[in-house]
Amino acid sequence: MVKIAIDCMGGDYAPGPIVKGAELAVHENIAHVVLLGDEKAIKSYLSTSKDIEIVHTTAAVEMHESPSVALRKKKDSSMNKAFELLKAGHVDGVVTAGNSGAAMAFAIFTLGRLHSVDRPAIATLHPTIDEGTSVLIDSGGNVDCKPMHLVQFAIMGDAFAKSVLGIKRPRVVLLSNGEEETKGNDLTRETNILMKYMDINYIGYVEGTDIYNGRADVIVSDGFVGNVALKVAEGIADSLNAFFKKRITASIKNKMGYMFLKDVFQELSKKTDYSEYGGAPLLGVDGICIICHGKSNEKAIKNAIAMARKFAEKGLNQSIKETISGYQSINREKEK
Amino acid sequence: MVKIAIDCMGGDYAPGPIVKGAELAVHENIAHVVLLGDEKAIKSYLSTSKDIEIVHTTAAVEMHESPSVALRKKKDSSMNKAFELLKAGHVDGVVTAGNSGAAMAFAIFTLGRLHSVDRPAIATLHPTIDEGTSVLIDSGGNVDCKPMHLVQFAIMGDAFAKSVLGIKRPRVVLLSNGEEETKGNDLTRETNILMKYMDINYIGYVEGTDIYNGRADVIVSDGFVGNVALKVAEGIADSLNAFFKKRITASIKNKMGYMFLKDVFQELSKKTDYSEYGGAPLLGVDGICIICHGKSNEKAIKNAIAMARKFAEKGLNQSIKETISGYQSINREKEK
Repeated sequence: MVKIAIDCMGGDYAPGPIVKGAELAVHENIAHVVLLGDEKAIKSYLSTSKDIEIVHTTAAVEMHESPSVALRKKKDSSMNKAFELLKAGHVDGVVTAGNSGAAMAFAIFTLGRLHSVDRPAIATLHPTIDEGTSVLIDSGGNVDCKPMHLVQFAIMGDAFAKSVLGIKRPRVVLLSNGEEETKGNDLTRETNILMKYMDINYIGYVEGTDIYNGRADVIVSDGFVGNVALKVAEGIADSLNAFFKKRITASIKNKMGYMFLKDVFQELSKKTDYSEYGGAPLLGVDGICIICHGKSNEKAIKNAIAMARKFAEKGLNQSIKETISGYQSINREKEK
Repeated sequence: MVKIAIDCMGGDYAPGPIVKGAELAVHENIAHVVLLGDEKAIKSYLSTSKDIEIVHTTAAVEMHESPSVALRKKKDSSMNKAFELLKAGHVDGVVTAGNSGAAMAFAIFTLGRLHSVDRPAIATLHPTIDEGTSVLIDSGGNVDCKPMHLVQFAIMGDAFAKSVLGIKRPRVVLLSNGEEETKGNDLTRETNILMKYMDINYIGYVEGTDIYNGRADVIVSDGFVGNVALKVAEGIADSLNAFFKKRITASIKNKMGYMFLKDVFQELSKKTDYSEYGGAPLLGVDGICIICHGKSNEKAIKNAIAMARKFAEKGLNQSIKETISGYQSINREKEK
């Protein structure tokens, strides 16, 4: 069974839900875990210490700390120590709900980038209306991208969709402000040209509507735009939950209606609940790293550990490496 | 009563719902209208010709025509003829559900820009969870913006929120990938600095989640990002409607639940229905112009006409002019 290192000091409610989620994963035989953080605090949330390794650390990265400051001053943090365990081969992956910018910085610093990847990127998973899953890459972190960065996101997203989601020929698209080639901005227009030379199933531009309607498997975007798209969706899910919560309890009639439709509301709530996916993989670093939402509850952490296990077992990074090197050899053939 | 020119040949389903929506507006005494387009086609949808002026035109801008091509070849289109009527003072505003890029191009060409506005921008209205309305500017059209363009969007959005929404001191924000000043991209970081010198209630960065939660009144963004945000929201609304539609009719139990919660679903559907707002004003051109969704139905057109009337009566453009010139005189004072 794989072993996952958990940064217990990262997240808005850490360490409680992080520790409990990890314990849940152990109880459900999802993975072995190593918990990193303040040992006393961690133990106060553990109901048993069976099969649970703890590595005591004293420093923690703050949620709003600048990544560059964290990188300089917090090398002995629970977050970076988790990456060091992965680098040393003691674990198969890292899960953190901490400061995502700092997690990217430490992952790059400690694990290193995969060969030919300039900017590792966060891939988020989204439910589509046809019961599928779409991948949005980059969902945060990489702002002011160059066309070649977006091409690399496309390659990584393509490999991810193939190896982890099992899609044979993922439909890869660029997120834009319209479908026609005349739309887009300087970045997407240049990328659009480059994408046509790639050995991937690139089908052009899509709009924001297309993240959820199943038209595409891999949606490629600059991290600024991807993050806005992600947060708009999250904001609507929150508004929707608040809307129904307020009204469903407003009258006996509405409560009756809710009783009849309970299954439907539960299904919706599951679909819009990020904790179902657990977290988002950071692609392009040399090791499995799952970055969770700062507000992660124990279910999210458990599911993120399951995700890390799946990626480790499927050899995700090996697939990305092979895809990139395969692409490079194709180019070398063309150059001959 | 104000008089509004309607481009009857623009929109995915034109001219049917456009003509019917205009007739509805006349019957409800919202405004006088002038219908522009193929006279025979228009008349085939009119149930009465009472109070309805028709200007026959032969050319129409196609929905996916390049704006620059339209600008060169379609000066006698129903769309541009509507702007010409406005320019000549025969009407008080224009409503079009046609090609929005072409509408921007013709509005700028025929009406001209307001003094000191480099790039007119589309402002969309969004319902917030606290029953308010937020304004997202620019929601499409202006890609690859410079910081000064975003500052101008902020000035126009501020004037709009004051004069039309009646908000005394609108909270103006920049859409970004995080709240901290260290977040953002090159464009938002430069704009963030400029915004602090403005005589507006600028409160910093917000994330995509904040478009709907009532934290801000005016959300400023490059048109590429704004369009993605808008379309993500639209995509989720569509997915949500499809989700409930499928499930509510799936069983007797679910149908019963729907009966009890009918009011709630109708309220939700109203909140997520763009046709309730009618359209989006193009700010920064010298005249009232409402751009509607290509899929507009007759209710959307009627509401867009009501919106045009409201803006004309409130003297929206006068407010924008005064705000901009006021800001300029403040700066001149400072320079002394």
